[in-house]
Amino acid sequence: MAVRALWYANGTLSLIDQRRLPQTRRLLRLTRVAEVAQAIRTMAVRGAPAIGVAAAYGMVLAARERGRTPDAAARILGATRPTANDLFVGIEAVRRAWAEGEDPVAAADAYRERIVGECRAIGEAGAPLFAERPRVLTHCNAGALATVEWGTALAPLRVAHDRGVRIFVWVDETRPLLQGARLTAWELAQEGIPHAVIADNAAGHFMHTGEVDAVIVGADRIARNGDFANKIGTYEKAVLAHENGLPFYVAAPFSTFDAGCADGRGIPIEERAGREVTELGDRSLTPRASPARNPAFDVTPARYVTGFVTPVGVVRPSAVARLATGSGLGSFRTGRAATPRHRRR
Amino acid sequence: MAVRALWYANGTLSLIDQRRLPQTRRLLRLTRVAEVAQAIRTMAVRGAPAIGVAAAYGMVLAARERGRTPDAAARILGATRPTANDLFVGIEAVRRAWAEGEDPVAAADAYRERIVGECRAIGEAGAPLFAERPRVLTHCNAGALATVEWGTALAPLRVAHDRGVRIFVWVDETRPLLQGARLTAWELAQEGIPHAVIADNAAGHFMHTGEVDAVIVGADRIARNGDFANKIGTYEKAVLAHENGLPFYVAAPFSTFDAGCADGRGIPIEERAGREVTELGDRSLTPRASPARNPAFDVTPARYVTGFVTPVGVVRPSAVARLATGSGLGSFRTGRAATPRHRRR
Repeated sequence: MAVRALWYANGTLSLIDQRRLPQTRRLLRLTRVAEVAQAIRTMAVRGAPAIGVAAAYGMVLAARERGRTPDAAARILGATRPTANDLFVGIEAVRRAWAEGEDPVAAADAYRERIVGECRAIGEAGAPLFAERPRVLTHCNAGALATVEWGTALAPLRVAHDRGVRIFVWVDETRPLLQGARLTAWELAQEGIPHAVIADNAAGHFMHTGEVDAVIVGADRIARNGDFANKIGTYEKAVLAHENGLPFYVAAPFSTFDAGCADGRGIPIEERAGREVTELGDRSLTPRASPARNPAFDVTPARYVTGFVTPVGVVRPSAVARLATGSGLGSFRTGRAATPRHRRR
Repeated sequence: MAVRALWYANGTLSLIDQRRLPQTRRLLRLTRVAEVAQAIRTMAVRGAPAIGVAAAYGMVLAARERGRTPDAAARILGATRPTANDLFVGIEAVRRAWAEGEDPVAAADAYRERIVGECRAIGEAGAPLFAERPRVLTHCNAGALATVEWGTALAPLRVAHDRGVRIFVWVDETRPLLQGARLTAWELAQEGIPHAVIADNAAGHFMHTGEVDAVIVGADRIARNGDFANKIGTYEKAVLAHENGLPFYVAAPFSTFDAGCADGRGIPIEERAGREVTELGDRSLTPRASPARNPAFDVTPARYVTGFVTPVGVVRPSAVARLATGSGLGSFRTGRAATPRHRRR
C-alpha cells in the first residue's frame, strides 16, 4: 500500500497530520491519551474507521499512564467527536480487554487488523460494481487516510483499477475542509488513478450531462433502517444521483453500523466552528459581520441508497437491520448509552 | 441604495473590482473598450445584468476611440463570456443606436435605467412570496453588485426586509469563486439583513432539516421553455428544493430571457480555468498532479422552477414562451447568430 494513515510501536502512535496534506507530509508522534483526543478533535486524524483505530491506540497509551482507568480513558476519547460510530467501537474493543486484564496492545492490534481486513474485503466485494460503470464520483475522503489502509469508498475503485478497469474518479473537493481536493486527490495521484477535482457544486451538473456512471461514499454511522450519516454534502449527492438514475453506494466496515440506532433521527450531528467556513488558512473569506453555520455531517435517508458495500458483500438497505443484529455485527455492539436525538430545528 | 456596482461619467466607466471584495473596496476606472472586455472576462464585474450594462458602456468607450466601428466593438465585447444573455442585449442596445447615428451615451444610460427599474420592479413583485416564508436560501450573488442596483434574487428580500418581514438569508458560499461568501454576505451585512454563510454542501441539509422555507436565485440565460442557466450549483439546489417540497424561484429582468433559445440544450456553458478550483489566492489546495474541471454554469430544467420573478410579476415556466415572444421582450431581441449548442459529452 502506498498510503497508511497511522501505526503504533513501543508506546508511540504515529500518524500523518491530515490537516497539512497535500502540501506537507508531517508525522505526529503521540505518547499520551490526551494527545490522541486532541488529534481526533482537531481532525489531524479523521475518517470514521481511522479515528476508531486511533482511539483504540489512544486507550493503549492511557493504559501506560499512571492512574488511568479504562472507563475514564474511554470517556476522554469518547468526548472528542459525536458522529462516527467507529470511534466508540474502537474505544470499547480495548476498554473491555483492559478492564478484563488482557493486553491492550493485543486488543488494539486485533482491532486494527480487523478494520484493515474488512476494508480489503470491501474492495473485493465492490470492485465488480464499476466494471461497466467506470466514471465514479466520490465525496470527502474515504480512502486509506480515513481507514488506516485501503479505504472504504476508494477500496473498490483501487481493486477495479488494479484489475485493468479504466476507472476515472470525480473528486468532490468537499468544503469546508477540502478532504476531497486535499486527501482523495493525493491518494489517487500517488497511485496514478485518473481523476479530476471539482467544486461540490459541479457534481450535479456532471451527473446531469451524463458524465458520471455511479457514486460511492463512506459513512460515519449507519442506522438499522439504512439511514446513514456522512460528511456534509453527501445527502445532496445522494438526492442528485437518485434524480439522475445513477446507483449510489455506501461502503463501510461493520464498525460503522450502529445496531442501537433505529433510524437517522438518532444520529448526533456535530456542528463545528464557523471559522472552518469563513477562513482558509490565515485568509478571511467573508465579511467580518457575517456569521456562518457549519454542520460537519448530514443524514441521508436509506431510500437513496442502492447498496451498502460491506465486507460480506453488497447489501440492500432493507437488509441492514438483519446485518446489524446478526453475528457479523454482534461482537461490535458498543454498549454505550443511547446517543442524543438529532435536532430538527 | 447602499451598493452600486458601476457608473459612467465623462468617458470613464467606474466599477467596484468584485474580485477584491470583501477585503478591499477598489475602484477600477476604465476608459477603453479593451479594458471593459478584460474586466468582464476576469470577472472584475460579473452578474448577467451588470455585465450587460458594463458592456453597454464599453460600447460607449469604443465609440470614443479612433477607428472603432459598432460591429467590431460588439465583437470584442461579445467574445468575453458566452453564457449570460444580458451581455449580448446590452451590447446590441448601444450598437444599434451608434450604427444609426444616435448618441451612444444616451442609449447606454437608457439601458442602465431600464435594468435598474426592472430590478426594482422584481423586488416589488417578489416580496410577497416571502412574507410567510422568510428563511430563504440563495446561491451565488444576484444582488446589487450583479445588477448595478437592487439585484434580482436579492431585490424581493430587500423589499420584504424593508417592509418588516423577518427575512433570514442562507448564503451558499458558492465555490469556486465564493460570490456568496464574499459578495452576497457583504451586501447583506451592509444592510443589516440577518444571514448565515454556509458551505454549498450544507444547503441540502438545512432544507432537509426544515430550516429553509424557499429558494431564490438569479439567472444568466432563460430559454423559451423555462430551462435556465445560472452559476454552477444552481441545478443541485433546484433538485434539492424540489425533493424537499420547497418553492424555487428565479428572478430576472427581460434581458436574461433569450427568445432565440428553445431549451436548455441551446445554452452555451462556459468552462473556466481549473486553477479557480485548485488555487485560492496564492495558496494551492490540491496536489500538483491533480487536474480540475470547472464549468462556471449549469442548466436547470424548467420543471424544477416554481416561478420566474419578472418585472411584470411572477410567471410560471409554462408562460415563459409567451413572455419571451411578447411585447415585453420583443425590443430586447438580440439579432445575433444562434449560440453554439451546449455540448452533451
